Amino acid sequence: MSSLFLRTLREDPADAEVPSHKLLVRAGYVRRVAPGIYSWLPLGLRVLRNIERVVREEMDAIGAQEIQFPALLPREPYEATNRWTEYGPNLFRLKDRRGGDYLLGPTHEELFTQVVKGEYASYKDYPVMLYQIQNKYRDEARPRAGILRGREFLMKDSYSFDLTDEGLAESYRLHRDAYVRIFDRLGLEYVVVKATSGAMGGSASEEFLAVAPTGEDTYVRSPGGYAANVEAVTTPAPPARPVDGLPAAQAHHTPDTPTIETLVDFLNGAGLGRTFTAADTLKNVLVKTRAPGSGEWTLLGVGVPGDREVDMKRLEVALEPAEVALLDEADFAAHPFLVKGYIGPSALAANGVRFLVDPRIAPGTAWVTGADKPDHHVVDLVCGRDFTPDGTIEAAEVREGDPAPDGSGPLEAARGIEIGHVFQLGRKYADAAQLDALGADGKPVRITMGSYGVGVSRLVGVIAEQSHDESGLIWPRGIGPADVHVVVAGKSEEIAAGGERLAAELDAAGVRVLLDDRKASPGVKFADAELIGVPTIVVVGRGLANGVVEVKDRRSGERQEIAVDAVVEHLVELTGTR
Amino acid sequence: MSSLFLRTLREDPADAEVPSHKLLVRAGYVRRVAPGIYSWLPLGLRVLRNIERVVREEMDAIGAQEIQFPALLPREPYEATNRWTEYGPNLFRLKDRRGGDYLLGPTHEELFTQVVKGEYASYKDYPVMLYQIQNKYRDEARPRAGILRGREFLMKDSYSFDLTDEGLAESYRLHRDAYVRIFDRLGLEYVVVKATSGAMGGSASEEFLAVAPTGEDTYVRSPGGYAANVEAVTTPAPPARPVDGLPAAQAHHTPDTPTIETLVDFLNGAGLGRTFTAADTLKNVLVKTRAPGSGEWTLLGVGVPGDREVDMKRLEVALEPAEVALLDEADFAAHPFLVKGYIGPSALAANGVRFLVDPRIAPGTAWVTGADKPDHHVVDLVCGRDFTPDGTIEAAEVREGDPAPDGSGPLEAARGIEIGHVFQLGRKYADAAQLDALGADGKPVRITMGSYGVGVSRLVGVIAEQSHDESGLIWPRGIGPADVHVVVAGKSEEIAAGGERLAAELDAAGVRVLLDDRKASPGVKFADAELIGVPTIVVVGRGLANGVVEVKDRRSGERQEIAVDAVVEHLVELTGTR
Repeated sequence: MSSLFLRTLREDPADAEVPSHKLLVRAGYVRRVAPGIYSWLPLGLRVLRNIERVVREEMDAIGAQEIQFPALLPREPYEATNRWTEYGPNLFRLKDRRGGDYLLGPTHEELFTQVVKGEYASYKDYPVMLYQIQNKYRDEARPRAGILRGREFLMKDSYSFDLTDEGLAESYRLHRDAYVRIFDRLGLEYVVVKATSGAMGGSASEEFLAVAPTGEDTYVRSPGGYAANVEAVTTPAPPARPVDGLPAAQAHHTPDTPTIETLVDFLNGAGLGRTFTAADTLKNVLVKTRAPGSGEWTLLGVGVPGDREVDMKRLEVALEPAEVALLDEADFAAHPFLVKGYIGPSALAANGVRFLVDPRIAPGTAWVTGADKPDHHVVDLVCGRDFTPDGTIEAAEVREGDPAPDGSGPLEAARGIEIGHVFQLGRKYADAAQLDALGADGKPVRITMGSYGVGVSRLVGVIAEQSHDESGLIWPRGIGPADVHVVVAGKSEEIAAGGERLAAELDAAGVRVLLDDRKASPGVKFADAELIGVPTIVVVGRGLANGVVEVKDRRSGERQEIAVDAVVEHLVELTGTR
Repeated sequence: MSSLFLRTLREDPADAEVPSHKLLVRAGYVRRVAPGIYSWLPLGLRVLRNIERVVREEMDAIGAQEIQFPALLPREPYEATNRWTEYGPNLFRLKDRRGGDYLLGPTHEELFTQVVKGEYASYKDYPVMLYQIQNKYRDEARPRAGILRGREFLMKDSYSFDLTDEGLAESYRLHRDAYVRIFDRLGLEYVVVKATSGAMGGSASEEFLAVAPTGEDTYVRSPGGYAANVEAVTTPAPPARPVDGLPAAQAHHTPDTPTIETLVDFLNGAGLGRTFTAADTLKNVLVKTRAPGSGEWTLLGVGVPGDREVDMKRLEVALEPAEVALLDEADFAAHPFLVKGYIGPSALAANGVRFLVDPRIAPGTAWVTGADKPDHHVVDLVCGRDFTPDGTIEAAEVREGDPAPDGSGPLEAARGIEIGHVFQLGRKYADAAQLDALGADGKPVRITMGSYGVGVSRLVGVIAEQSHDESGLIWPRGIGPADVHVVVAGKSEEIAAGGERLAAELDAAGVRVLLDDRKASPGVKFADAELIGVPTIVVVGRGLANGVVEVKDRRSGERQEIAVDAVVEHLVELTGTR
């Protein structure tokens, strides 16, 4: 450390909010160059490379092959998939000296597809899995939290190419298992949450979220182990009930009741002999949708229980890839059968408007809903008897306490940081690129793809976020910049020589060691050792005269005196160097 | 190879001119994405990583510390050194979503200076050497020769920071020696040529050029081992001769002799009793120069022997950092004492124009030169008697056959590819950034810097350029994608099993092995093995029944039958695996 390019800081950086950002800057791992753009100093780069190595080993172990694409890419392949435009302001675009359009790769689906199409032709070539570990660029609107959400960041992205859906499922499983091993080796606490690919259906997609209260991603989990993105939560439908014997629907004059609240108040004061709650009402929200690339908007009615809002993000995901928008005044004016505040299923059915409902609106359930004229509602309108929706949709908000779809208990909300994503892309990019293999029968077979990503540089921040205390960072063994931090605590030549000898012996034994041989006070050195976070700290100090050194576990704080003669052997064991 | 992501090509790519480009594409190492922008396929990436490893080991060995800067950089630091503008069209510039100016780093002097200034303060912190291995971006006007001159390329750049000139000299020596070890380990044929830093003087600068007839860089060399950039060649000056007894200068009417050729013809027909050659004439070329950032142009006379042209590039380097331009008509009109075609030293001296001469114009040498009026020349004008130049300058063209300055014989021109550059920057960037250390006496000490670069991705192309034959690539041991290429040559199960077993045993012994287990003809496999260029090829074929395999040296073509029982041991020895 007397020659290491390092300066630790006593103060938190002014722009830092989350612990990992504060500590990685204070401990001299990273330095900010511009918003969301960081330099890696020696300690930080070692951690980054250690994580990269773990990722590479696990990718190689499943037979994925490493390649490397450029970061600077021509526009054309991204034009072909429309992502040149779709990416919007998140894409860094630039021109070369001849005026040609280029971009900095935010992700490389197009290039992977192109390279496989260029090299492979026959069904015998498949399956293949390719990956790269490479800098990616996204012009985030709000780069934040240091390296947790940067604009230049290191990512492992891989793609699988299969002839069949079964092959894709197997490639997906291999990747998912590899990710479990990677995140386990990194000592992370994480959940695998169901993500959804919306209306395209069928395609499996899961996200790996590191549990972190500072995380930007919200998910829900149950005591029984269910975990999912809010967008992926499915609603258990009540069993269909027989409609026989249910009271007939009755229209009521309900003056000044355009909201659920005013309606419930009115009904409960109307002497109907029952108590109504918002959950007894059916709220019909009108939106318009259109297919991607199409100019035609179509009306869509979405029915949810009146005690819940429509969650626009869940709605959007459910309708993907179609676009969704709320109706404006002109839309209502153009469709006078839509009586704002009093819309019911009847007018929708009569006017051919598609009507999708929350799964709770099951056959045999009775609802209070709009009667399609101002100041009127219908009570006891029974699903399957008085109206028939065109299907169900997951668009209602998810609440804490809602039951998990797998019966594993009530949901609660939690926060995390996305560290990995596995996704069955299917044939979208293969269709765009016409990626076919020549089958055994001489006919072309369209390739099906999977897409898999790990945020490598983000993981440095995520580990720091999960593994620190008030004194500094605490690295898992094998991941930190060293495995043993030898502190020379004392001014005598004997102590200095003892520290150097120990460090040399550890190094010779293959233990990664950091030696604090600086001319600084023991207090400064101890504080820096805690801040830097190497998992085992060895103090070579006054005890050396008695033939002992102190071995301290950074995480637990436990200290142990060990004989100098035995300490190398002890540390070799402890660090699992052999 | 039955699952390796590889397709070899029989045909040269249409855009390839040099052998390395043709072979690296044909053998499936790289693929073009855009002009000067390439993807690395599995075999190519392995070679790139092997070279990177060699470079990293040698950098670590001299105590340089690895860090990593972003490739996407804000404008400000480059504005401070004026390079945002100076780089011209070679710089990739872009804007972020907020309109901020960014660039893709072509080189990182500014960032290295900034980071050291940020971390270090005291003289006790120095010296320090930092390096990175990182993608660089330059928008070359003519990207060419595949990865030899790309627009995105991997480079090792390092910088040294020292308190004293002696310290800088030592950091420079350490880097130079490390580069020698790197290029030796890579098996390259290269020369270290003197480069010059021009009029700034003093600062040492050398380039490492790989010898290659396809190279873009020209240099000169002598049989005795001298090598230099043309700009760095110095001219041995003849010894000063006494002027006593030399004939007096005589003015002659020389009608219509504005060129050296017409002048020599005229003199040789004038009955002067001697024969003149162009080498006896003194040509005085007028240029104008100005200091950087200054608006003032100043006249400068440059005298060279009449048989040589002024080499503008040598002149520019000699006058750096000043700008140089030729005179235009307006300049001649403004200075009527400059008589075009007949300019002599007298008018220059009389009008206070600085006059620098080629070292051959030594004291005591006599010349035919202009008499400063139309159609008149002076003969026997003696340097040091009739005119006194203000100094010498290296501006005359260098020719094959000129003597090397160190007396090692006549120069000849040769071509090479720049693979490394070591350069004593001095205090230029430290001045711009006000990079000081607080000295032991409490006074600031301005830091002096060195800059050192190795073109890592280019080296893949350079090795291929130097090491190939008509059948394909030939990698040095330890650098290629594998060290042993096992070819299964035969359809029997025994042969296939024998090949697999051998490959597994080699792998277990730590030998990097490529196994050709494809269902292809031996001819196809042999051709691919030659093309791919792994240095040792082992053929497992019919001989296996007799307990032997064939071991072939890719470079020499020599073949040897080795007993199966002994072949692993043999190959472990051969590849130096232990």
